[in-house]
Amino acid sequence: MREIVVPLAGREYSILIGPGALRELGPRLAALGFRGRVALVQDAGAARHHGAAAAASLTQAGFQTTAIDVPAGEASKCLAQLGALWDAFAAAGLDRRSAVVTLGGGMIGDLGGFAAATYLRGIDFVQVPTTLLAQVDASVGGKTAIDLPAGKNLVGAFHQPRLVIADLATLRTLPEREYRAGLAEVIKYGVIADAAFFGDLESHREAALRQEIGALTYLVGSSCEIKAQVVGEDERESGLRAILNYGHTIGHAIETVAHFRYLHGECVSLGMVAAGRLAVTRGLLAESHEQRIRALLAAYGLPTALDEPLPAEAILEAMLHDKKTRSGELNFVLASHIGEVQVLPVPPEEALAAYATLHEPR
Amino acid sequence: MREIVVPLAGREYSILIGPGALRELGPRLAALGFRGRVALVQDAGAARHHGAAAAASLTQAGFQTTAIDVPAGEASKCLAQLGALWDAFAAAGLDRRSAVVTLGGGMIGDLGGFAAATYLRGIDFVQVPTTLLAQVDASVGGKTAIDLPAGKNLVGAFHQPRLVIADLATLRTLPEREYRAGLAEVIKYGVIADAAFFGDLESHREAALRQEIGALTYLVGSSCEIKAQVVGEDERESGLRAILNYGHTIGHAIETVAHFRYLHGECVSLGMVAAGRLAVTRGLLAESHEQRIRALLAAYGLPTALDEPLPAEAILEAMLHDKKTRSGELNFVLASHIGEVQVLPVPPEEALAAYATLHEPR
Repeated sequence: MREIVVPLAGREYSILIGPGALRELGPRLAALGFRGRVALVQDAGAARHHGAAAAASLTQAGFQTTAIDVPAGEASKCLAQLGALWDAFAAAGLDRRSAVVTLGGGMIGDLGGFAAATYLRGIDFVQVPTTLLAQVDASVGGKTAIDLPAGKNLVGAFHQPRLVIADLATLRTLPEREYRAGLAEVIKYGVIADAAFFGDLESHREAALRQEIGALTYLVGSSCEIKAQVVGEDERESGLRAILNYGHTIGHAIETVAHFRYLHGECVSLGMVAAGRLAVTRGLLAESHEQRIRALLAAYGLPTALDEPLPAEAILEAMLHDKKTRSGELNFVLASHIGEVQVLPVPPEEALAAYATLHEPR
Repeated sequence: MREIVVPLAGREYSILIGPGALRELGPRLAALGFRGRVALVQDAGAARHHGAAAAASLTQAGFQTTAIDVPAGEASKCLAQLGALWDAFAAAGLDRRSAVVTLGGGMIGDLGGFAAATYLRGIDFVQVPTTLLAQVDASVGGKTAIDLPAGKNLVGAFHQPRLVIADLATLRTLPEREYRAGLAEVIKYGVIADAAFFGDLESHREAALRQEIGALTYLVGSSCEIKAQVVGEDERESGLRAILNYGHTIGHAIETVAHFRYLHGECVSLGMVAAGRLAVTRGLLAESHEQRIRALLAAYGLPTALDEPLPAEAILEAMLHDKKTRSGELNFVLASHIGEVQVLPVPPEEALAAYATLHEPR
């Protein structure tokens, strides 16, 4: 079992990483001083595989546990489900000393975390991410959100968890495609901050794809550490934290326009390929580095080109409406080396040209 | 024009108090560095009287202003209106540098402030309270909220405004009864923190009820100063801030059970009378002080007894479900003198006995 401490002034918390870590849920909550009622907000899919184990751990530690099921899928990150959670918290009698536990992928952490952030103007929450994407991304940073009809994550709060339990055994219940999609974010951490980690991803591909526990612990742990370092220096997203957005400007736009075709991580993979091309065109990134990034994504089974074209106007519209876009100006995270990025303004036509290269398989 | 600075570490803001202060809205927003888009979230009633002036001030200062009307009444502090505001913010193209202006009473500040607190994980907002209650209560403290079917203010966020404009001229459009209800909170400030202010309220009743500008400026300004001092010492409501809850434990319960019959301030008046009785019964407060409090409330035309009984079980149920109640334990703010209070645990039966005295007109 590996334990990473996310250093936030006054509110640091631990991420427990290991197979079977879920058993620690109840005892760790008790050790943090929680008593009484706990709401277990669970994705219906995660609940089927891990709900009983989570509830048992909580009950054995003495908590009055109310399980609240949420339908699986991004569509649940909506106003109606948010309202249903708030009503369920009230019905469960949660008070300011109660905890909310979220069990599932990024959707449940975002939705349940936001519900906790706002119920009684904020009660504590603990995350049990059961997808690779959620373990390496959502478990650090304190971002919670729901979607609006107008766009993803347009409403939310910064709300740090009190504890994260990343049980590596839960990943075995994940479809292969979803596991690989999570690896896109892992590769992202290498590109933006750590050339040595990127190199390890190149040389340990087999172990990573077979989900060997040693490799998994290293992947998840290193990803969390890199993200924790970035977030620790910029908790409220005023500057440095923007580098975490690598691959996301075009990636999010693809996700918005074609969200039934690609998983989030697959969109990030495509976005990283386009961002790499853009950086090469500008003379910022060496062609050899761009090729290594693209080759690694392909080696992990991630898409590096669109299988059919999407309308360019819709992509542009989506980029300009991203909530990180300030008054019509696009900011891109661009790599200058593997392990080093910078944030630069990019004219819309240049962004579109980079996007267009995704239509040309190479 | 009086200007009070609410001292919050790193985020202090001004409250502008005076007749015609609304004209300052646009220029002040510009001076704070806002540019571009502003959403003007307005109570339909306040919009009729002051919407044009607010919009004109913003437009003249160069802001692209989108007015968003919300139906008047507490019923609008709900999930559906919150969702409608979020969608309207997206349609108006607000970004992280935009501001939300709320125009109206406490409802609109709570609802619009919460929508701003969560849109894009938090954008700035400016309050233009147009009721006495909102000017002396909601304009300080940073509490925003909506109601759930299960209770009032169960969902919300702490979100400090960047500016408050308390235009005393707007109070002239207020029904007399609503103005008087606001005075209950003004009297509360005297009881909890300032005996001299309480004395001034006794001796300047006529000027206060006639809404003379000098008296109003003093009432609103002193109330904001007292609240700002309490909140400044305890922004997140962990201790001292609880004294602002004086009269609210029983008051809120009455409001929950009979909310169509009494205004919020009238419930607080009843709650203060009951809390006074409770303190006398305990030997904490001198009978003479209790009588002065009750007499002042009556002199300002506020209720000091229930006109018909409410079921005691429903009142108890409401008190125990108040979000400030921790695990079934009631905490009361009780006066030991005029100008001095303490927070003490009170058994439910003692609270009910105090409530019952509201059925006996004295």
